[in-house]
Parts: sequence; C-alpha cells; structure tokens
Amino acid sequence: MAMFISTDALLAHWQGHRRLTRRVIEMFPDDQLFTFSIGGMRTFGALANELLSMGGPMAHGLATLEWGGYAPPKATSKAEILQLWDEGTAKIDEFWARIPAERFQETLTSFGQYTGFGYWQVLYIVDNEIHHRGQGYVYLRALGLEPPPFWER
Amino acid sequence: MAMFISTDALLAHWQGHRRLTRRVIEMFPDDQLFTFSIGGMRTFGALANELLSMGGPMAHGLATLEWGGYAPPKATSKAEILQLWDEGTAKIDEFWARIPAERFQETLTSFGQYTGFGYWQVLYIVDNEIHHRGQGYVYLRALGLEPPPFWER
Repeated sequence: MAMFISTDALLAHWQGHRRLTRRVIEMFPDDQLFTFSIGGMRTFGALANELLSMGGPMAHGLATLEWGGYAPPKATSKAEILQLWDEGTAKIDEFWARIPAERFQETLTSFGQYTGFGYWQVLYIVDNEIHHRGQGYVYLRALGLEPPPFWER
Repeated sequence: MAMFISTDALLAHWQGHRRLTRRVIEMFPDDQLFTFSIGGMRTFGALANELLSMGGPMAHGLATLEWGGYAPPKATSKAEILQLWDEGTAKIDEFWARIPAERFQETLTSFGQYTGFGYWQVLYIVDNEIHHRGQGYVYLRALGLEPPPFWER
C-alpha cells in the first residue's frame, strides 16, 4: 500500500481545520449562537456542541479503545464552547501521540456503533467539522458577516 | 513516517464524497440552481462549477504536472453539470492511477499558484467540496427540501 498521508501530517491537517473552526465560533454573534437558524436546522451553537462531542472523544477512543471515558459537557455560551474547544485541541494532541500506528488500518467500532477503519473514523470527524462549519459560513453571511477565508488555517 | 491512509483508500474516500455531492446536485431544484442564494453568496450552480474546475483538473495535474491540460467548460444547466461531474469522476480514476506514489509527499505548485505537498493539494480539493456541499445543504433546507444523510456515500 502506498502512503497518501502520514499520521503526523493528518494531525496537523486536522488541527489546522480546528483553528479555522475556532475562528468561526469566535466571530459568531453571541446573541445568535443558540437562536439563529435557517430552514429549521440546528443553531451553530448546537452544531459546535456536536463537534465537541466528537473530536476529543474520538482521539481518546482510538488511543484507549474505551468510548465514553472522555466526554465534554454541553456548552451553553460562546465562552464555554471556546474553552472546551481548546481543551479538546490539547486532548487530541495528547491522545493522538498514544494511538498505535497500525490502528488506523484496523477495523474497529467507535462509540459502540460506528464500524470502519481507523482512518475512516478520523476522516468522518474531520469531514463532519468541515460540513457544519460550511453551514456556519452561510449563517454568518445571512447575518451580514464575512467569514474568514477557507484557506486560512 | 507512519501511514494514516493509503492512496487507494483516499481515492475511494474522495469518490464517496463525490457520489454524495452528485446526489445533492441532482436533487437541487432546476429553477433555483443558478438563482437561489443566501446572504449574497454564490448560487449552488456556481459552486458546482467551481468544484468541476478543481477535481478532475487536480488529478490530471498531479499525474502529468501540467496544469490546464484538462479543464471542463462552465455548465449552465443541471444536466450539463451532472454530465461533466460524471466525466470528472472517470478522469479522476484514470489520472489517479498514473500519479507516482511519491508525488503525494513532494512539494509542488498547482495551477501556477498553490504550493504545498501533493497530499495537501488533494485534501484542499476534497475539503472544499465538503465545505460547499454543506452550504448546499443549507440552501436545500431553506428551500424546504431534506438533503441526503451526510454519512451516505
């Protein structure tokens, strides 16, 4: 099997996305974070809570094969989201270093229900973050605000 | 360097995303594809044209190191977008097989201006597709339509 990307580079790529997502959370108007919505969708605050429940806990699970050992509480303010975000960022670095390299090519079940290769588990989380952040961009535009450039990480 | 994901698996991952994006294009109302917008953003038709100009051409460029040798025309209807999409999907498979494995770890400049590792070039394209498709999800919801599940590929 030829390598597309290394584990180190993927972590750097993921953390780059997390820096951009953090900027989007940071610039989201406080008074709209848990109220503004389009087409009946979840608020960006709710989406951010979903992302918090996936990133750090996935890194923890891949390192320990225990699911649920690390779960951030549900945030109810922007300050709380940002604090949990930074905590999650540090947890990801910490646990990533403990994931056995071969685990990414093994099949495993995360959170008691999602079965796939280790790399698939991680990419699902990263892609889901990009997906919901893209939705946050539309919310910001609808609120008259210009989101940060997509390429800035 | 420990491998996170192989070149074969990344191609399959990318093509899975392309299948989902194709479904979103397909279900987008014809009469809204080049007109509907939120917050002054581009239409989903314009975003789809951007994606068309990046996917196939990136695979072509990585295989040949020639940028601009393959560029789809700008589509002006859903039928045309879908036709070019399928063409791009086939081109990606075709050119991917011709990319030297070591190229993904080399630094190169794409389209005369974007410099980074080969893997970075590809991930940028894939991530950009997820980002804009996520925006398409908001457009669909705002139009009263339920997008396909994110996990269906």
